[in-house]
Amino acid sequence: MYSRKVLKFLEKNKIRLNDKAKIITLDDEIEGILLNRPDYLEDDTLIIKLSNGYNIGINLRNIKSIKVISKTKPVKTINSKDKIPKKPFISILHTGGTIASKVDYRTGGVVSRFSPDELIKMFPDLKNYGGIHSVFLGNMFSDDMRFSHYKKMAEAVKAEISKGSKGVIITHGTDTLGYTSAALSFMLENVPIPVILVGAQRSSDRGSSDAGMNLICAVKFIKKTSFKGVGICMHENNNDEACVILSGVNARKMHTSRRGAFKTINNDLIARVEYEGNGITFLSEHHNKSGKFKAMTGMSDKVGIVKIHTNFSAEQISFFEEKKYKGLIIEGTGLGHAPISETDKLTKEHSRIRKAIKSLIDSGCVVVMCSQAINGRVNMNVYSPGRDLLNMGVVSGDTMISETAFVKLAWLLGNYKKEEAKRLMNENLRGEIKKRLLL
Amino acid sequence: MYSRKVLKFLEKNKIRLNDKAKIITLDDEIEGILLNRPDYLEDDTLIIKLSNGYNIGINLRNIKSIKVISKTKPVKTINSKDKIPKKPFISILHTGGTIASKVDYRTGGVVSRFSPDELIKMFPDLKNYGGIHSVFLGNMFSDDMRFSHYKKMAEAVKAEISKGSKGVIITHGTDTLGYTSAALSFMLENVPIPVILVGAQRSSDRGSSDAGMNLICAVKFIKKTSFKGVGICMHENNNDEACVILSGVNARKMHTSRRGAFKTINNDLIARVEYEGNGITFLSEHHNKSGKFKAMTGMSDKVGIVKIHTNFSAEQISFFEEKKYKGLIIEGTGLGHAPISETDKLTKEHSRIRKAIKSLIDSGCVVVMCSQAINGRVNMNVYSPGRDLLNMGVVSGDTMISETAFVKLAWLLGNYKKEEAKRLMNENLRGEIKKRLLL
Repeated sequence: MYSRKVLKFLEKNKIRLNDKAKIITLDDEIEGILLNRPDYLEDDTLIIKLSNGYNIGINLRNIKSIKVISKTKPVKTINSKDKIPKKPFISILHTGGTIASKVDYRTGGVVSRFSPDELIKMFPDLKNYGGIHSVFLGNMFSDDMRFSHYKKMAEAVKAEISKGSKGVIITHGTDTLGYTSAALSFMLENVPIPVILVGAQRSSDRGSSDAGMNLICAVKFIKKTSFKGVGICMHENNNDEACVILSGVNARKMHTSRRGAFKTINNDLIARVEYEGNGITFLSEHHNKSGKFKAMTGMSDKVGIVKIHTNFSAEQISFFEEKKYKGLIIEGTGLGHAPISETDKLTKEHSRIRKAIKSLIDSGCVVVMCSQAINGRVNMNVYSPGRDLLNMGVVSGDTMISETAFVKLAWLLGNYKKEEAKRLMNENLRGEIKKRLLL
Repeated sequence: MYSRKVLKFLEKNKIRLNDKAKIITLDDEIEGILLNRPDYLEDDTLIIKLSNGYNIGINLRNIKSIKVISKTKPVKTINSKDKIPKKPFISILHTGGTIASKVDYRTGGVVSRFSPDELIKMFPDLKNYGGIHSVFLGNMFSDDMRFSHYKKMAEAVKAEISKGSKGVIITHGTDTLGYTSAALSFMLENVPIPVILVGAQRSSDRGSSDAGMNLICAVKFIKKTSFKGVGICMHENNNDEACVILSGVNARKMHTSRRGAFKTINNDLIARVEYEGNGITFLSEHHNKSGKFKAMTGMSDKVGIVKIHTNFSAEQISFFEEKKYKGLIIEGTGLGHAPISETDKLTKEHSRIRKAIKSLIDSGCVVVMCSQAINGRVNMNVYSPGRDLLNMGVVSGDTMISETAFVKLAWLLGNYKKEEAKRLMNENLRGEIKKRLLL
């Protein structure tokens, strides 16, 4: 938030947040939109969003004059709540997150508190893209998502399909968006429409917000595509040229704050959607399955992730046996390794780790190996510790990132018998395992 | 390994592994070095390394003729064991890993079993770069590294320095190389020479191995640099043009198998070292500290990492209190979050998670928040759950990757009192925290 001094200056010059203004400084002339101040910048710096999408800061003492070029337009009300449009319509399911947040000007932090209608009001452009049916599912930060929320979302998607929806958008916080997209990918078997998760890295009431563009690109994509399945629509990079549609499996948030934070791992992008203009480029073939649509929403609660690190201890594995876990993802090192070799007198703990893994598997837990290297394939046949783990019954996570493997294992154990779940872990159900991968 | 049929064909044509050969196929003429066959390719494909660094596969049935252009040269013996060269010398400390591995032709897997002398024999080029003092520390896969091995390495570096070494190379497996480089960065305060860790993604007896080039580039760098500190020398990307020198803090293995797997996170590269020619480009300024060199090798064993995921449970935190951990890295989501808000009736577990974190901190454990997004800064002031965690006493990991934060916390708790350790977590000791970072 700006200081009192800046606010007075803005008031005197009749500039409000999100107005477009011309600023003459000591050595330059700048046009752009006045944004709110991020909390980490010094008080007396105005933040201006330039037409190329970048933001610059200008200190008050360098400003000779400031003048409004155009005011922000008041938005029209669309009252879409519970009224199902008659014409082909798109559904928006709201779950919360930054995309539905605004800045709390008392504390300077971001709070989660837009209603679905308020959000639609903020983006009048959505109207140009057809009827919208808006459904409120929740207003939460995505780190609070639990498996039971996935079930609610899957059922809400099913309900929209039965009402005739042409495509579903789910607004969602970015923190765990990749987990949710993976869960819905597995839960919605043969889904007959596109289901696109949309998040934002900057809250909707900020000029630098990516919320509007991500939403609008998702709508554009749904209107033009024959893709049936679960995807994600987020900024391609840090400018405002295009969004990308990522497959719902193996998408990962790879930056804490940038708008182009989502990357598809060991996988191809589905499409690139230009923001202005109508360009949609399909970047990989999608093979829509034609089987019967079914929502399988079971999830086993007793599944965990453990990350291997140096100086690891056996008790970190035994914990999962004591607590009767049904599934465990080991985020191993490199090609899929864990410290299980007693190579010198300093590595006596490693025999205990080996025994703990064996004992956990013997207790009935399905143990799957992924890699903390993130990119590339797990291949436990190359080195002897990997082969030993395979022989003990550890299942390879192949090209799955650990987050997808975690969700898949919980879903499999929630819907299938253990041996079938174990077998299906290595089968490519939704595009999560790539046969061919560039080394 | 090649099939019997291929081996017969090669024998008939007097071609051995690593010979340079001209191959005439049905529609092409190819020159290159014959490599061994990776296990995942079909049996009857010859693997040829081209002069541009890429490998191609040629099926036997397409080959019209094959002819040797030049044979591999036998290497000369350098007996360097325990003899300290008289002239300026570089030390190589051997710890094992793929760089010191060869393929076991019985099983097809890779085993760790070169002696230091054998390794030096394999790279006669090293001779051109001055005297080498070779020290055997171990022959282990790096996933088996424990804190006590870091202590051994730091002490061995100290011993080499006292003998007059101009620079130390440590050969090391790549799986946990980033953990070790961080540990040595902290342990070796004001180290007066470059200490460069070198690994390989492909074993040394394969034609596609990166072992030789990584080693030679490390030697080149040491001979030309004024850098004092701990770094890593690995392939820049997947061709054989150059290696990069990465800072020892915040380097991460980002691919399971590619040669250019190591990336510096939230940090700049130190230098780029051309393989052929003498080009070294320094990519960031290094500020060598001039204080007294000291090896501080204490490490606290009771430090762990826990990864947050959806459907997380409080018992995964309480475990660390029950087991009396002194430090814990939480690999949170996004800007540094954990599920601690009871937003609806499905999130009752979250109050328990909040209490478990609070109770763990009250028990005396130092809890540090990093992000599973890997890139970008942890900023817990933006959203209310982050601020709540800060208020509970969680320490921000700032720009540190969780692996570096883990090693740093264990090192701080091994050498300082708790309150001092907590304070130093947020101080930039070795370049691990960046004040300025591009958003």
